[in-house]
Formats: sequence, C-alpha cells, structure tokens
Amino acid sequence: MIDLCTLGTGGSIPMPARALASLYVRCDGHALLVDCGEGTQMQIMKLGWGFRCIEAVLLTHFHADHVSGLPGFLLAQAKANRDQPLDLYGPPGLAHVVSSLRVIAPQLPYEVRCHDLAMEPSPIRVCGLDITAFPLRHSIPCLGYDFRLPRLPRFDPDAARHLQIPVRYWGQLQRGESVEVDGRRVEACLVQGEARTGLHFLYATDTRPSGNIREFGQGADLMILEGMYGDPEKANLAHKNHHMLFREAAECARDAGAGRLLLTHYSTSMEDPEIFLEETRHIFPPTDCALDLSQATLQFDRAPVLNLRPLIPPVIPVES
Amino acid sequence: MIDLCTLGTGGSIPMPARALASLYVRCDGHALLVDCGEGTQMQIMKLGWGFRCIEAVLLTHFHADHVSGLPGFLLAQAKANRDQPLDLYGPPGLAHVVSSLRVIAPQLPYEVRCHDLAMEPSPIRVCGLDITAFPLRHSIPCLGYDFRLPRLPRFDPDAARHLQIPVRYWGQLQRGESVEVDGRRVEACLVQGEARTGLHFLYATDTRPSGNIREFGQGADLMILEGMYGDPEKANLAHKNHHMLFREAAECARDAGAGRLLLTHYSTSMEDPEIFLEETRHIFPPTDCALDLSQATLQFDRAPVLNLRPLIPPVIPVES
Repeated sequence: MIDLCTLGTGGSIPMPARALASLYVRCDGHALLVDCGEGTQMQIMKLGWGFRCIEAVLLTHFHADHVSGLPGFLLAQAKANRDQPLDLYGPPGLAHVVSSLRVIAPQLPYEVRCHDLAMEPSPIRVCGLDITAFPLRHSIPCLGYDFRLPRLPRFDPDAARHLQIPVRYWGQLQRGESVEVDGRRVEACLVQGEARTGLHFLYATDTRPSGNIREFGQGADLMILEGMYGDPEKANLAHKNHHMLFREAAECARDAGAGRLLLTHYSTSMEDPEIFLEETRHIFPPTDCALDLSQATLQFDRAPVLNLRPLIPPVIPVES
Repeated sequence: MIDLCTLGTGGSIPMPARALASLYVRCDGHALLVDCGEGTQMQIMKLGWGFRCIEAVLLTHFHADHVSGLPGFLLAQAKANRDQPLDLYGPPGLAHVVSSLRVIAPQLPYEVRCHDLAMEPSPIRVCGLDITAFPLRHSIPCLGYDFRLPRLPRFDPDAARHLQIPVRYWGQLQRGESVEVDGRRVEACLVQGEARTGLHFLYATDTRPSGNIREFGQGADLMILEGMYGDPEKANLAHKNHHMLFREAAECARDAGAGRLLLTHYSTSMEDPEIFLEETRHIFPPTDCALDLSQATLQFDRAPVLNLRPLIPPVIPVES
C-alpha cells in the first residue's frame, strides 16, 4: 500500500490557504518527500504522519517554491531526534544548493547525503520503491519522478508440493527468497505462478507536456501533474513560463493510459481550480484537483482511492 | 502613528497554527519587518498590509527560525513588482548569509542592500523611525532593536505673531523647516513651544535578560520581548538555551518602566501561553501574550491599543 499526501499545492508563490509544493509518500512504514517548499514542516505537522520516517527528499528543481522549506525541514528532523542519515536527490548542483541553504542550519545531529542525478533517466531505490528520475521541459533543469512498487508473482503451492518442499519454507519462498531444503537449493522462481501487477504512480510539475511523462507514466495507476493554469486562454503564458494548462496535463494522462489524474501546483490567479475541472474531464474523465493535504491511497488489485478533503486530526504539541 | 503586527509568534520550530518569528512595523505609509521566519510571506498575505511598502528587513540573528522565510519574501516582493532597493540589516556576516540563501532566489528585479551592523549600539534610520540596534545575550550574536518616532515640539503661534511671520509660512515652521520672510531667515526653533514626547517601542527576542533591554527600553510605550517558557520550572532550560522565562521578560519591562509588555516567541511546549499570564502579571500587570497576527497601535498622547485577536479580512488573490 502507498499513501500519498499533497502537502502543498501552490505554484510559484503561496496563498494564505495554499502552501508550496511538497508531496508526502508513505510506503510500508517508510516515507519520502518530493520537493520541500516553504511551509512544508508546518504541513507535515498538520498531517501528522511524522518526520523521522522520512528517509529521503527528492527535489524536482531549484526554484525557491520547491526547495525553500528545506532548512526548516532539516531542523524539524533534528528536533524529532533523527539520528539516521537523510538522502537528498535532485538535479546536478544539488550539493551546492543544499550546502548554501544550510548556512542557517549548519549543525545537524544526522548526516545529510546529497545525490546529484544526471539529466537523463536515472533509477534510484528509496523506501522499497523503484523510482526513475527523468528530465522534464522547464526553464531550468527539472526532474519528474516515476514510482513503482513491484509485486512478486503469485505463489504456486502445487509447484511447492510437487518439489516436496516442507510448508515451513513456504513463507521465505513467498517473499522471493531462495531456501536450502535437505542440502538442495530451491530458487523462489520455481514456485512462482502468474505475474502480478505492482503499483505505479508518477509525479511531474514545472514542465511543458513531455514525451517522458507519457512514456514513464504508461499505465500508471495515478499521475500527479502540474496544472498551473486552468483557463485555456492562458496558453501563451503557459508556453512562456514553461508550465502546463489543465488540458495539457489531461492529454498527457490520457495518452499514457493512466488510471487517474490529480492536478496540483496552481497559479495564484486561480482561487478555485475546480471551476476548470468540467472541461478538463472532457479530455480525461478521471481528473481531480488536489487541495493542500489531499490524500490518495494505492492498493494492490484496487483502484486508487482519493480523499481530497480529509479530516485532519488535531496535532499534539511536542515538548521542547 | 505606528502599527505593529506579530506575524509569527513561534520560537525555534513552528506549530500548525503558530508561524515563526516576524514583526511587521508600519509607520506613515512606510513599513519594515523585524525577522523573517519560514511562512512570513503567507502571514503578510493574511494580514493584507502589503509587500511593496516594506522597505527594510531588520534581522536579529541567523538562527533559521528568524531568517528561513527570506528567499520566499524576496521573491514575493518581486511578484509584487518591487523595483526600489530593499535594505537588510543584521549582525556581522549578514551579506554572506543573504548571498548563500539567495542560491534559490538569484535574480530579483530590485537591489538588495546588506548592512552588517556591529555588535554594539548602532543607530539606523528607516521609515522615519530612529532605530538603535543593540547586542543581546544569546548563543550566537543577536541584536535587539529600539524604535523611536520623534515628535516636534508644539508650535507657538504667539511667538510667530511676535516675529511678524505671515500665516502662510506657519505650516513649514510647524514641520520644523526654516523659512525666508522678506529676506529674513527664520529658524523653526524660534517658534517652537514645549517639547513633546514621541513614540517608543522595543523588540528583543532570543536573549537572556539584559541591561541593554532595560536601558534602551527605559520608558518605552511598548516592549515586545520573547517569552520562550512560561513555566518557572524551566529556568534551567532557559539558561541553557539562552532564552527568557515570562517572568524574566516581565522583570525587564518593570525595571525599564515600560507602558505595556507583549510576549512572543513561544516554545512548542506551550500550546496556550496565556495560562502563564496571571502569575506574570504579578510582576508586571500590563503584560499580554501576542498571537499570530496580533496587532498594536501606538499614537501620540494615547496609551497603546492592543488587538490580540483581530478579524483579518479575506485576501484577494493576485494575478500571476
């Protein structure tokens, strides 16, 4: 199961009730962030999913609205008693940007490891997720991220019985591990049945429509794409600022054959992005507009569940 | 008249409903900020007093909770079409900190001028206010700021008549300007009566109690001081972390003979700082706890007016 939360849905500058870009991704007790705009630490507090489980931050690019919350987030991790390393990923130049921003967070009780990614498809593995970073089409180098949670093929008990493997070994084999049975090595693939589809979502903001989005997002359960402008009359502005219209995002999702589309990263010119939903759904019907703290849950063998306006429980203050 | 607003009242780390340190100071159409913690730009939007009128930011020190909102604030000024220079003041090292943080805000359509202040009393003049920066007692170099709005002496019409100055010159003389009357130069001091008291407030956070606070704040209409901990049992923690208890702030205000005391910069261990007010008022009765967006108004010949829970009008979104 994967839980997602759009912590902030503002593009470029925030609004009083719209924080800047950040996505919280939680999978089997581990977590990561994509981007960390100003206010991210407050949004994580509101959400209540915690700080210390966040093992990595994947930055799309170095415009301030995607990274200005990093010093505060690093210090919030320290206040949460983090002692394990934190991995940061981002476009080339990451280490320089992070060390510059850390002028106000120089001392941390844990290691910050910067991984500069190339501007070409790059596989990384974080929180049990197979992630591919891929280049987008923005005014500065910008990466999208494609996430896949693989699923093992179905276990075949008949094959296990046929190979005379005692039941006490079945658990390991089901988890894909090989076992030793009476001096005989048995590989998991010998007792695996039909292949099963894993989970797949893609995140891309700050870009014009791109072949990479359509290609990596092929058949994704969920795409989270920028919808900087809803109004089709802002096409020129979208071109000029290297952003997408709602309908362009919907075309990407449609062309990729995605299951659902969640829009985010809105211009302040749209107070209510949902007024543009109806016409966007003519292009790709299962489109929704994320709000700050909207949530999505992806589960094997089920359609994604969206909770756009979740009730967030009150936050218990921390001692300090 | 001076209007003040405590944009954020959180110390060290924010809470969901408590932004980090920043004070908005408005005087005769000009404005400045003291400190600029993460979330300041959102708080300014909520307040609705505007960005472009802010001509300067006075930083107390370089802990992240006081400066992490600076890149976002600088970009928000750009979005508000600022074209005039912005002046930044702060302890030694300011220019290095600002240039490091600007790694994510490198291009701005206006000039940012950094003024490093010495760690000794330093007079500056911003927005028509006579300001003295003075050193505090924190774990790193930290400045407090004392603000005075001078007031001209009362105009003496009898003296003006006695000197045979036509009434058409009186306005200039009242504003303290000298005039030429039939080839005769008349200085304003010749037609000034009794001296009049101006306005005076002081801002100091992130410090142990200090002689400078008591000295510069002597007779201030209002002191805004940190109250990191309300509980007197946290005295050791206050010592260790170089912060003040509520009662220590109250003692400073009492010893300075201040008119009122507004506490701010609260630890996250206090969900409701007001529960410690009653015992603090035994030391200095006119003490209040600021909340985010609390306001104070200082006017000549009147006691300060506090509005701790103002109704903030809804914000009109900006085109972008």
